[in-house]
Amino acid sequence: MSNNPPQSPAAAAPPSGPVDPAARDRHWMGHALSLAREVLYTTAPNPRVGCVIVRDNRVLGQGATQPPGGPHAEICALRDAASRGESVAGATFYVTLEPCSHYGRTPPCVDAVIDAAPGRVVVAMGDPNPQVNGAGLARLRAAGIPVTTGVCLEDALALNAGFAARMSRGTPWVWAKMAASLDGRSALHNGMSQWITDHPARADGHAWRARADVVLTGMGTVLKDDPRLTVREVPVPRQPRRAVVDGNLQISESARLFDGGEVWVFTATDDPVKAERLGRRNARVIVLPAAEKGRVDLAAMMAWMARHDVNEVHVEAGAGLTGALLSAGCVDEILAYVAPVLLGDAPGMVKLPMLSHLDAARRFDFIDIQPVGRDVRLRGRFADRWQSLLAAATPHSPAAPAR
Amino acid sequence: MSNNPPQSPAAAAPPSGPVDPAARDRHWMGHALSLAREVLYTTAPNPRVGCVIVRDNRVLGQGATQPPGGPHAEICALRDAASRGESVAGATFYVTLEPCSHYGRTPPCVDAVIDAAPGRVVVAMGDPNPQVNGAGLARLRAAGIPVTTGVCLEDALALNAGFAARMSRGTPWVWAKMAASLDGRSALHNGMSQWITDHPARADGHAWRARADVVLTGMGTVLKDDPRLTVREVPVPRQPRRAVVDGNLQISESARLFDGGEVWVFTATDDPVKAERLGRRNARVIVLPAAEKGRVDLAAMMAWMARHDVNEVHVEAGAGLTGALLSAGCVDEILAYVAPVLLGDAPGMVKLPMLSHLDAARRFDFIDIQPVGRDVRLRGRFADRWQSLLAAATPHSPAAPAR
Repeated sequence: MSNNPPQSPAAAAPPSGPVDPAARDRHWMGHALSLAREVLYTTAPNPRVGCVIVRDNRVLGQGATQPPGGPHAEICALRDAASRGESVAGATFYVTLEPCSHYGRTPPCVDAVIDAAPGRVVVAMGDPNPQVNGAGLARLRAAGIPVTTGVCLEDALALNAGFAARMSRGTPWVWAKMAASLDGRSALHNGMSQWITDHPARADGHAWRARADVVLTGMGTVLKDDPRLTVREVPVPRQPRRAVVDGNLQISESARLFDGGEVWVFTATDDPVKAERLGRRNARVIVLPAAEKGRVDLAAMMAWMARHDVNEVHVEAGAGLTGALLSAGCVDEILAYVAPVLLGDAPGMVKLPMLSHLDAARRFDFIDIQPVGRDVRLRGRFADRWQSLLAAATPHSPAAPAR
Repeated sequence: MSNNPPQSPAAAAPPSGPVDPAARDRHWMGHALSLAREVLYTTAPNPRVGCVIVRDNRVLGQGATQPPGGPHAEICALRDAASRGESVAGATFYVTLEPCSHYGRTPPCVDAVIDAAPGRVVVAMGDPNPQVNGAGLARLRAAGIPVTTGVCLEDALALNAGFAARMSRGTPWVWAKMAASLDGRSALHNGMSQWITDHPARADGHAWRARADVVLTGMGTVLKDDPRLTVREVPVPRQPRRAVVDGNLQISESARLFDGGEVWVFTATDDPVKAERLGRRNARVIVLPAAEKGRVDLAAMMAWMARHDVNEVHVEAGAGLTGALLSAGCVDEILAYVAPVLLGDAPGMVKLPMLSHLDAARRFDFIDIQPVGRDVRLRGRFADRWQSLLAAATPHSPAAPAR
């Protein structure tokens, strides 16, 4: 699954023998996606994008988005081709995201692509910003360049679901990580929870922390486990930001969470004295409106994070906050590790209001099922949330202007 | 997985081109196993066995165990070869279970095999009866026939785990079927449980009922759901026997369980009047010693079933009986269907005593993980129980008598 932690891109052996053009396009787009996965940790808040320039089943140049302020994937691929002494005129460009058509920190990529005179451009997903989707494609078509869109669209979107969510709906893409026994118990009654799942599952969980912009927890977990929530089990070039939901601003300055980079403390309690004290411990206290007394408005928190360039949020919290986020409609995906054990009489993994009918339960789809060490990882996704993201990321194809 | 509900055997295309002899053996044993799976429902209490006779990568004859009293697999394969006009002398015989060497309802197969003068005999598992394991192989070797053993041993054992358990330890092989939400809830507080999992998962559950000799439930489930526990979602040549654990002999004669064949009612309450009344409804009441007042000794119940030729028990009960069977060490496998939904505040899927340390929890191994419709099926197996079965089924290779 393309939403997985990064792996080295597979060697892009061109399909041997004749293949149909659609299969060829998927092959090379798959390669461009593998380039994009290589920069999983370094492009935020920009999307992870890969580009490969191909002629006669041969790579002329390739590249992926550099850290913010650096060149985008198309420019990297063009420079790579130039450094190899390759001429790209007439070649096919595979780009995982519609080339940008506006000035940001870098000039519009679409101009550079047009200047390179490609024979064809293949694009996976459109720009998820509704103001911009289709503009780059229209520019290419206006320049007389044939454009194919939607190749490997879902894979491309999975790699940038956070960027797409922030751009299209103004909130991050949020997954809730859980670890539990087969009967859904995440701890014993005495609080013991280390460890229900085995080491490979915990390492896999760290890889998911690593790709997020923010790792979010709740005060219950801070009080119970005093976690650091850093990425330790996999190598990463940067630690994601940590954040805690603390409605009553109870967190102690001695919490281990504060060892390391800046921590966001979301609260519904305006206490400048405490906030100042926490500030000396690398905390930034964000006072948000209360959903009810002492409880942070979780939807407002997500919107705040998106306004502060957060694409992806990894929730690693207890049954209380995880359940509250689910109830508030703030969760897009479930990332569950299930251990081969039954625990019986022990607290459940998620607190949700009692239901009186099964029809009232919100179902998701299992999108990925696989063993991780002795445990099983089950990824779930709410279909409605994915569909609206997919609609935003589907390349718009406005009628090409007359040429 | 060979322990799955039956499928038509794959066409046994011989491996093309040169392959190593071990791979060739696995290929043809795999074909013999697929023949055995075809008779999944009809051999009880005998094991499901397949046999294929091969020369130069060509099938000369094949067969599988016929219903009790009918010929065993080897005889069927020999007759099949004869009916095709094939001479089998010098050919390789693949049999999934060591040929029997004693007179039962049929003469010993090993004599017929020896008479056929095979060039080699390949056997998957040994006879799990410790009194007999190796005797058939010794007879073959004594006749100068080269014997290879242990090919596809685990697959062969999975197909006859119940027979092996009954023969080697005197109890059936028992799996506990459960259906629950991802957070381990099998019903709402108001009792509603229809349906947490979707239709394909329920049909798959019926296929597991179908292969068992006994479908076992508890009084809690009878009172709550009044189930029939028949196989309805898949076609079967015979219904498995139903049984209920009813310590206080509370079951009503009007329970739907009694519609159909004989039902075993296991109780700790000796009430001849009630037993006689139930007898008029197709019930056989079995009074067993009480583990404690009003509670059936579950281990004694399993031993009773094995003495009555039960190989496989499919438990489909509530959290109470399922937990009690687990606690009593009467469960070998977990057959869990997990639905893509979180239910939160609702009863758990299994009642087990409260633990004070995670080390005290009995872990199993996930042996099969796969999507079934929208749901996920997770099969777990207790390693110690499988290992002792495997030890019993490993073909003994006594030193061949001097010839």
